[in-house]
Amino acid sequence: MKRTTIKELTKIELKNPVLLEGLPGLGMVGRIVIRYLSKQLKAKKLARLYSPHFPYYVLVNKKGNARLLHGEFFFWKNDGGENDLVFFTGDSQPQTIEGQYEMAGCILDFAEKNHVKTIVTIGGYRKEVETKPRVVAVSNSPRLLNESLKAEALPSSAGNPIVGTAGLLLGLAKFRKMEAICLLGETRGYLPDPRAAKSIIEVLQKMLKIKVDTSELDREIEKSKEIVERMQEIEKRREKYAKKMRRVEEEKISYIS
Amino acid sequence: MKRTTIKELTKIELKNPVLLEGLPGLGMVGRIVIRYLSKQLKAKKLARLYSPHFPYYVLVNKKGNARLLHGEFFFWKNDGGENDLVFFTGDSQPQTIEGQYEMAGCILDFAEKNHVKTIVTIGGYRKEVETKPRVVAVSNSPRLLNESLKAEALPSSAGNPIVGTAGLLLGLAKFRKMEAICLLGETRGYLPDPRAAKSIIEVLQKMLKIKVDTSELDREIEKSKEIVERMQEIEKRREKYAKKMRRVEEEKISYIS
Amino acid sequence: MKRTTIKELTKIELKNPVLLEGLPGLGMVGRIVIRYLSKQLKAKKLARLYSPHFPYYVLVNKKGNARLLHGEFFFWKNDGGENDLVFFTGDSQPQTIEGQYEMAGCILDFAEKNHVKTIVTIGGYRKEVETKPRVVAVSNSPRLLNESLKAEALPSSAGNPIVGTAGLLLGLAKFRKMEAICLLGETRGYLPDPRAAKSIIEVLQKMLKIKVDTSELDREIEKSKEIVERMQEIEKRREKYAKKMRRVEEEKISYIS
Amino acid sequence: MKRTTIKELTKIELKNPVLLEGLPGLGMVGRIVIRYLSKQLKAKKLARLYSPHFPYYVLVNKKGNARLLHGEFFFWKNDGGENDLVFFTGDSQPQTIEGQYEMAGCILDFAEKNHVKTIVTIGGYRKEVETKPRVVAVSNSPRLLNESLKAEALPSSAGNPIVGTAGLLLGLAKFRKMEAICLLGETRGYLPDPRAAKSIIEVLQKMLKIKVDTSELDREIEKSKEIVERMQEIEKRREKYAKKMRRVEEEKISYIS
Repeated sequence: MKRTTIKELTKIELKNPVLLEGLPGLGMVGRIVIRYLSKQLKAKKLARLYSPHFPYYVLVNKKGNARLLHGEFFFWKNDGGENDLVFFTGDSQPQTIEGQYEMAGCILDFAEKNHVKTIVTIGGYRKEVETKPRVVAVSNSPRLLNESLKAEALPSSAGNPIVGTAGLLLGLAKFRKMEAICLLGETRGYLPDPRAAKSIIEVLQKMLKIKVDTSELDREIEKSKEIVERMQEIEKRREKYAKKMRRVEEEKISYIS
Repeated sequence: MKRTTIKELTKIELKNPVLLEGLPGLGMVGRIVIRYLSKQLKAKKLARLYSPHFPYYVLVNKKGNARLLHGEFFFWKNDGGENDLVFFTGDSQPQTIEGQYEMAGCILDFAEKNHVKTIVTIGGYRKEVETKPRVVAVSNSPRLLNESLKAEALPSSAGNPIVGTAGLLLGLAKFRKMEAICLLGETRGYLPDPRAAKSIIEVLQKMLKIKVDTSELDREIEKSKEIVERMQEIEKRREKYAKKMRRVEEEKISYIS
Repeated sequence: MKRTTIKELTKIELKNPVLLEGLPGLGMVGRIVIRYLSKQLKAKKLARLYSPHFPYYVLVNKKGNARLLHGEFFFWKNDGGENDLVFFTGDSQPQTIEGQYEMAGCILDFAEKNHVKTIVTIGGYRKEVETKPRVVAVSNSPRLLNESLKAEALPSSAGNPIVGTAGLLLGLAKFRKMEAICLLGETRGYLPDPRAAKSIIEVLQKMLKIKVDTSELDREIEKSKEIVERMQEIEKRREKYAKKMRRVEEEKISYIS
Repeated sequence: MKRTTIKELTKIELKNPVLLEGLPGLGMVGRIVIRYLSKQLKAKKLARLYSPHFPYYVLVNKKGNARLLHGEFFFWKNDGGENDLVFFTGDSQPQTIEGQYEMAGCILDFAEKNHVKTIVTIGGYRKEVETKPRVVAVSNSPRLLNESLKAEALPSSAGNPIVGTAGLLLGLAKFRKMEAICLLGETRGYLPDPRAAKSIIEVLQKMLKIKVDTSELDREIEKSKEIVERMQEIEKRREKYAKKMRRVEEEKISYIS
């Protein structure tokens, strides 16, 4: 394998499909959202993406088999609705700059071939979140941006960089004449963050006019809460200690002077 | 040399050949196994693999000559048995992600050309081994996995990553419709580990129905024992010291508070 | 996108065009100069350059849209004057060696196509500047070098390396039979340095026989002064501290002896 | 420039040419030897080598011009002797593995085209040298190795790696059916080491039956001696200090226990 390649698993005609992408990244927000949605909607396998830019190991699965790191496309037939959905997630982001650009190009080729006109990319946005995480939206389409704001997303402030595949797909979409929007959930980013994922799913439900049961996600949030609290405590102690050390260090210096 | 290339040294017709691969890695387990087997079975040179992804130095050999880092294929005609064997080992793993994928693809091309249908990759698995190292098996073929379990290998737990060529060959084999299994010997991984290699050779003897004299390996194990013990002692002391330092550090902090 | 590519935005016939290049680098001198000149001269967009060697993120702009990192070409019709001007600046330098060479080659292809015969590259030169920053010139053309010296640039001393695109364009220009000069403004390099930029603009005004209002730049210089002073103070303290620590360290050693 | 390329400066018919290579490396031994020989023999420019794998900066020369990092081939017509000589040196080694392989292949293409049958590569070998540095030889040709031993080189012990272009040319030469030898001068490697270079030049004079005045090199050696002595003293003090610190550290530990 010399280049990123996509193996189709099914041939299917899709109706005005929207592509939703979420890979591992800050707080695993993108990946959690895509996995949760495709599971709840019972989306079916569409294609697999392999790339020589993923890390060079295989993962052992439950059957004692191993598989290459890969990306996966799922589809969901939205009967009665306007848009079928295509989901993309995977095990890893490409590990080099050139690999990032190559994979993003490959995903867009596949999207074009399937007549995708709209792309939603999903990720995390580092923030000390106290209450409900907010969702920040960036888009190459005023129409899409507006829809996201109506769905209670917030506009991003200028200058923020969006790193990785979520950003590149958004940046490259305009050369394919596709509308694209990136939704970023606020997250501390230390740990997989189902809270940030839920905020994004709420926005998506309104934007895409879909209905998803979030009770399973709520259980995940409950479980993660305890861990998050422990992490925060550790962090606070570390900060307190660092402050003390700085003070001690400064006293030393005054002493030396 | 712009790409990984294989130079054939002999033309030979092989009978249902099985490819066994083991490169330098954790505990050097893979390389020890392949070198020991091909030596004991008096396997003959089949081909050499060169790659611009190996480190850029040459090694001086006993004749005062130097040679590029390379991989080597050996073959063994299994008269009366079912499968001829092809061995692959080498000086190094490729040094980049893209190089890892390229070399694995190149090895599989060569295997296909030689009508290989089954691949066994060999490596180490980090574990604090007290008694006899166990062998863990991962396979894309229930049949092969089952044979390894009958030969006293254990199934791997899900989620474990298998890094490098041993993993990639296993992951890529299914695209060539080849059966593949990876055998990992438990090893502390600090030093070349002939004990882990012996455990794997025992499994292989049963799986491949071959007979290999292991007395030379036993001598290696005896020699390595002393070194291993010394290493363990050093390690224990380091841990003890680290624990003390942490205690001291904590006392300092309480003092500062 | 597999290679650096340039998308033309306008077709225009240019009169003896001179290309001026300045990318982010030491003190951001090159970028400040190019942006200031193209803004003051009301230069128009000519083309955009995209590259898989730029970092893999997108930047959010004021409209809540995001864009890939890119380079931009502007042009200015110098009515009545001898040379039209083409400006090139961008968000980033390529991130790998091979990417640096590829982008420089791509810029030169575009320059050739537009009949550019002369290139001016602009950057910073690390120096503890007390008074007005000087401008150092390096050129593959005695004629151009001479003109720059008449415009009060100074010749560079031998052995100095010029890193990045400013250097590579200069080095590669001779294979295209283009005259090239690199102008480096002295800068401490910690912060965007409008003072160094102004010195270069003064040289360029004489060399290119253009007239640019620098009052806006003067305001930038005023604003940056305060920051620079604070930085210098921090640095001095750090040096003082480092000296003390060295002394203490030496005393410890004598004590240990 | 996407690949390493060689620009020929002269067309010349060479008589049984021997290629001598020496790039920057340990103690700069290879580069010093090649530059000294080509200067003393008044060798003439043959070709330049450019590569996108060299660092991406240009060097300012004495005329205030700048040039890309490059390699240079020189030739010397050995009137009355058996072999004309081709010298290769340069500013830098390629900066990536793949670049190292690519440049070595490019040099060998050029050598083949010029009917080179014998290659001598030159480098340094790290050793605490007290007296006259010795020269270690490694070769793919028993004949060449023997000639070097008669010229007072020593055989290398097995297992030593030879890093970089000097090693790769030696390793790749056999695929071109060229004889190759690598001569390594013992050097501490901290500083440009004309003493090691002289030892190699003495071996080369005998092997190649050439006569070179070394008095200029002797002056360099004299100059470098003082610097070397100062370096050695600094190093001794550092070692002494490190030893003390280790002792102090150990006492602390016993105290903590």
